[in-house]
Amino acid sequence: MSRPRAYLAGPEVFLADGAAIIAAKNDLALAYGFLPNGIAEDELNPAGLSPFEFGHRISLANEKAMRASDVIVANLTPFRGISADIGTAYELGFMCALGRAAYGYTNTVRPYFERLRDDYYHGAIARAADGATRGPDGMMVEDHGMVDNLMLDGGIETMGGILVRRQVEPARLWSDLAAFEDCLRAAAVRFGLAVRA
Amino acid sequence: MSRPRAYLAGPEVFLADGAAIIAAKNDLALAYGFLPNGIAEDELNPAGLSPFEFGHRISLANEKAMRASDVIVANLTPFRGISADIGTAYELGFMCALGRAAYGYTNTVRPYFERLRDDYYHGAIARAADGATRGPDGMMVEDHGMVDNLMLDGGIETMGGILVRRQVEPARLWSDLAAFEDCLRAAAVRFGLAVRA
Repeated sequence: MSRPRAYLAGPEVFLADGAAIIAAKNDLALAYGFLPNGIAEDELNPAGLSPFEFGHRISLANEKAMRASDVIVANLTPFRGISADIGTAYELGFMCALGRAAYGYTNTVRPYFERLRDDYYHGAIARAADGATRGPDGMMVEDHGMVDNLMLDGGIETMGGILVRRQVEPARLWSDLAAFEDCLRAAAVRFGLAVRA
Repeated sequence: MSRPRAYLAGPEVFLADGAAIIAAKNDLALAYGFLPNGIAEDELNPAGLSPFEFGHRISLANEKAMRASDVIVANLTPFRGISADIGTAYELGFMCALGRAAYGYTNTVRPYFERLRDDYYHGAIARAADGATRGPDGMMVEDHGMVDNLMLDGGIETMGGILVRRQVEPARLWSDLAAFEDCLRAAAVRFGLAVRA
């Protein structure tokens, strides 16, 4: 049997030490029996392209890689705000629509509700006249006990995956791969791969 | 010919006056010849369900509605941060994966790069040793001249849609539907519908 292909989604490409983390994730995926299918953006040549065209070229390459992949493992750790990287969210939806296996992880155990209440609204939420909990801007503060927006948690649930939450030290928010490995281990069982001890 | 179905994605459900805005969007979609396929969450009964189960029920209903839709019109106006609503991003990816027509709009003309540089990093970005522009946290500051993350802009481009940017008064950030209507007008042409003057 050929190795199942795993699309490793996440905002690592933006990190200062992103290349090393991506390499470590690729190595782990290989060790669990998957062929990692992330894109190395520097393989795409921007010469002669406008910034928009170059960005579109990356998008096309990523979509092609997703269509060729059997499973997505999405890093949903909050990125530049209270939610996951929005490009990763797009990719998770893309793979769920294709009916592919979907796994996710986040390196914080704080649910979306807490991040919204404390980090975004600084505690200033209250029950409104309509019975809903709302912020001072009138917006509803949803609490489904989920990691992030219900489409993300719900999509993974529908595709039979798991969404792993682990609390890591702040300095290791992006480099700690234990939760990522939890996903690989679960996906390896699903795909009938020999699982590491 | 039966009316094409339009999935109207966006964070309106969270707004204090969301119901009225959603009703106005549905009416406009109908006026342009589409059958709007948004979900009214209050049609789903949470009785006996855990918060997670109820959230998952909404997710399933939304995914079912998307699979039944011919086109998505996504409100990508920044929501609770520098990017679009993350649930909407998931839905845009979902529809692009299914090969459906994809349109988007945002009620600000400020590109992602400016929001990231000014609103998130407060101007503190600089060229790093590797030649990339980075914030003080070392993260890359991408500039593709796009509305948001390249997967969102790129997906709409690939599906042949348009991504409309309009600047509106702050008080009308969520209620101004001119850009939404631009999308409907373009989609109506694509679907061969009689277009309003």
